[in-house]
Amino acid sequence: MSAVRARRGAAPQHAVILAGGFGERFWPASRSAVPKQFLRVIGGETLLDATLERARRFAADDRIWVVCGAEHARLVHQATGLPASRILVEPRRRNTAMAAAWAAHCVARIDPDAVLAVLPADHHVPDRTAFARDMRLAARVAQRSEALVTIGVEPTRPETGYGYIQAGDPLEGFDGVFRVRRFVEKPDLKTAKRYVARGDYRWNAGIFVWPAATLLSEIERWCPELHRALAPFRPASRSARGARRPRASSRQAVEAAFRRAPSLPVDVAVMERSDRVLTVPASFRWSDVGSWASLAEEVGVGEPGTKAAERQGNRVIGGEALFEAAEGNLVWAGDRLVALLGVEDLVVVDTEDVTLVTKRDASSDVKRVLERLRKQGRHDLT
Amino acid sequence: MSAVRARRGAAPQHAVILAGGFGERFWPASRSAVPKQFLRVIGGETLLDATLERARRFAADDRIWVVCGAEHARLVHQATGLPASRILVEPRRRNTAMAAAWAAHCVARIDPDAVLAVLPADHHVPDRTAFARDMRLAARVAQRSEALVTIGVEPTRPETGYGYIQAGDPLEGFDGVFRVRRFVEKPDLKTAKRYVARGDYRWNAGIFVWPAATLLSEIERWCPELHRALAPFRPASRSARGARRPRASSRQAVEAAFRRAPSLPVDVAVMERSDRVLTVPASFRWSDVGSWASLAEEVGVGEPGTKAAERQGNRVIGGEALFEAAEGNLVWAGDRLVALLGVEDLVVVDTEDVTLVTKRDASSDVKRVLERLRKQGRHDLT
Repeated sequence: MSAVRARRGAAPQHAVILAGGFGERFWPASRSAVPKQFLRVIGGETLLDATLERARRFAADDRIWVVCGAEHARLVHQATGLPASRILVEPRRRNTAMAAAWAAHCVARIDPDAVLAVLPADHHVPDRTAFARDMRLAARVAQRSEALVTIGVEPTRPETGYGYIQAGDPLEGFDGVFRVRRFVEKPDLKTAKRYVARGDYRWNAGIFVWPAATLLSEIERWCPELHRALAPFRPASRSARGARRPRASSRQAVEAAFRRAPSLPVDVAVMERSDRVLTVPASFRWSDVGSWASLAEEVGVGEPGTKAAERQGNRVIGGEALFEAAEGNLVWAGDRLVALLGVEDLVVVDTEDVTLVTKRDASSDVKRVLERLRKQGRHDLT
Repeated sequence: MSAVRARRGAAPQHAVILAGGFGERFWPASRSAVPKQFLRVIGGETLLDATLERARRFAADDRIWVVCGAEHARLVHQATGLPASRILVEPRRRNTAMAAAWAAHCVARIDPDAVLAVLPADHHVPDRTAFARDMRLAARVAQRSEALVTIGVEPTRPETGYGYIQAGDPLEGFDGVFRVRRFVEKPDLKTAKRYVARGDYRWNAGIFVWPAATLLSEIERWCPELHRALAPFRPASRSARGARRPRASSRQAVEAAFRRAPSLPVDVAVMERSDRVLTVPASFRWSDVGSWASLAEEVGVGEPGTKAAERQGNRVIGGEALFEAAEGNLVWAGDRLVALLGVEDLVVVDTEDVTLVTKRDASSDVKRVLERLRKQGRHDLT
């Protein structure tokens, strides 16, 4: 089959942006109604805007899709201008395996040979050109090998907050592309240091490229539970060639599929099990901006308001801040002036109804504050 | 003369509250328009309210006076309900020597034998009964000895932010009352420790008790510059016994006097020079609440909002705060929730237009932030 496709030339490449996340770790700037991907965190642009711009560098405008929750469909529509037909609204949260599988069905109905790039909406990739180049390479690799491709990021530090991929044998004909030997969940620091030292481990960025057909057949093979849930999207009889494909976006089919679907990350449901997984190296700098601390790393000096603060490594997003004998702080400012005096490595998030003060290294515990507020019934603040 | 007065019985005791301070160290809660003494910092009461209540314990209602700047006259009137005749509005800031001298003239015009207790409006004294008892004792001592009495507070720690008084010979007939050997400006830590160990040093609380006539005669002797400035308040000819006393509150006289008056603390102008200075020990706990750090010491557990926080020594004033893995913090909350996560010994002051985050031990440097804002022309925020 590869030979057939190769003769046809490159398959149409689609971009599927997964915008279902809640990004609780950016509370109180992010709320359940306005998650992280809708925040203007870097360079005055939302993470979703930036992801869309990255997608436009390698996918035609009518081949860009967004998957999101019903509560954010309107925000996504306003932010992206995409037609409703390419905003896939999940009736319930079922994690990334179901989101990716559903998107594969929807895209395949239009382009049966389509190659999909699946992009989380809330990552930060400053170099869009390099990103698009890598996506095109990954698409060629995925199409040629009928493979599931995951982007591997060269680790620059022994990060314990990311999953890792171990590279196996190289793929002939594509420099730097490897079969994946195994996926590793977030390691402890000692293990992470070993991975970085060895050189054959990469960060699993959660950015995937695959032919729609390959993903669906690998799901059939490795995750029968999910495969069964997808039945409403398949023709009534699989042997009935030429049978009319059901609309993968019809309300009833979607409701039925999501009701049955397991809630699994696509890594767990397919990637860790399949033997058709390859990794393409990222030639771009990447961050999942998963906490205030990692955002602090990503906000460049030279952002608005940071001029005087650059030398002490203070960063400001949004509004106005003043630093006096203060070092290494990140301020998310709103309408008020935020003044920091004699403090170090803090994260201060000043919003209309909540002010959060935390240490950079404690910022991933923001969920604990959220949990307490929810227990107290303060849903107005979450 | 003492004998004459003693036969007459106790002289009428007046309370003069000095409310001219700007309390910049409580920025951004305090502003030039609403200084520290007007803030509800402890127990939901302003420091000025609390001072007024203390005064009422030993002085009749019509013997309570307030000295303040023109910009705060309306606030003082609203807060105290005092008639305009007992709100002495300074046409310009001339520090405490002039304020005390002017008040002495105003009071003496009504009660030539009056004894004045001069009380800063922005101190914290939890025990009002003990305070009143000490004020009465100090008045008896001051009247009997025609002396300037300063209240000495037994030091409980080697505080470097206060001035000290060294006690000399004991005064016969009054237990614990001493002549003052000398005043010492804020010492360094080593010196402060020595003072505390020696036992004959006390904190100079800036609370004074004196007969009006004694203060004015001591000013004449020790601070001729100030004495000359007070000329508009004196009868045209000093030898003309029975000459009508000029009104010490007439606008022209006040303007003229303040124009000429030196800007000196009363400690420097008179107390450190005079040989008629006695010290009466305070039997009450006292704080000048001169910084956010010292306020944190004074705000009791059990204040609104602190229940859950008591164990970690977090304190809340005003609004609502949430502490998660946070210890020893002071929060001044307004309308917003202030959430502290994983931080220690911070002061967070959340106001309508400014949020300040500082360390408790840096909080006395708030003036540096204020200075920068003024340089930037941000008078709206100062």
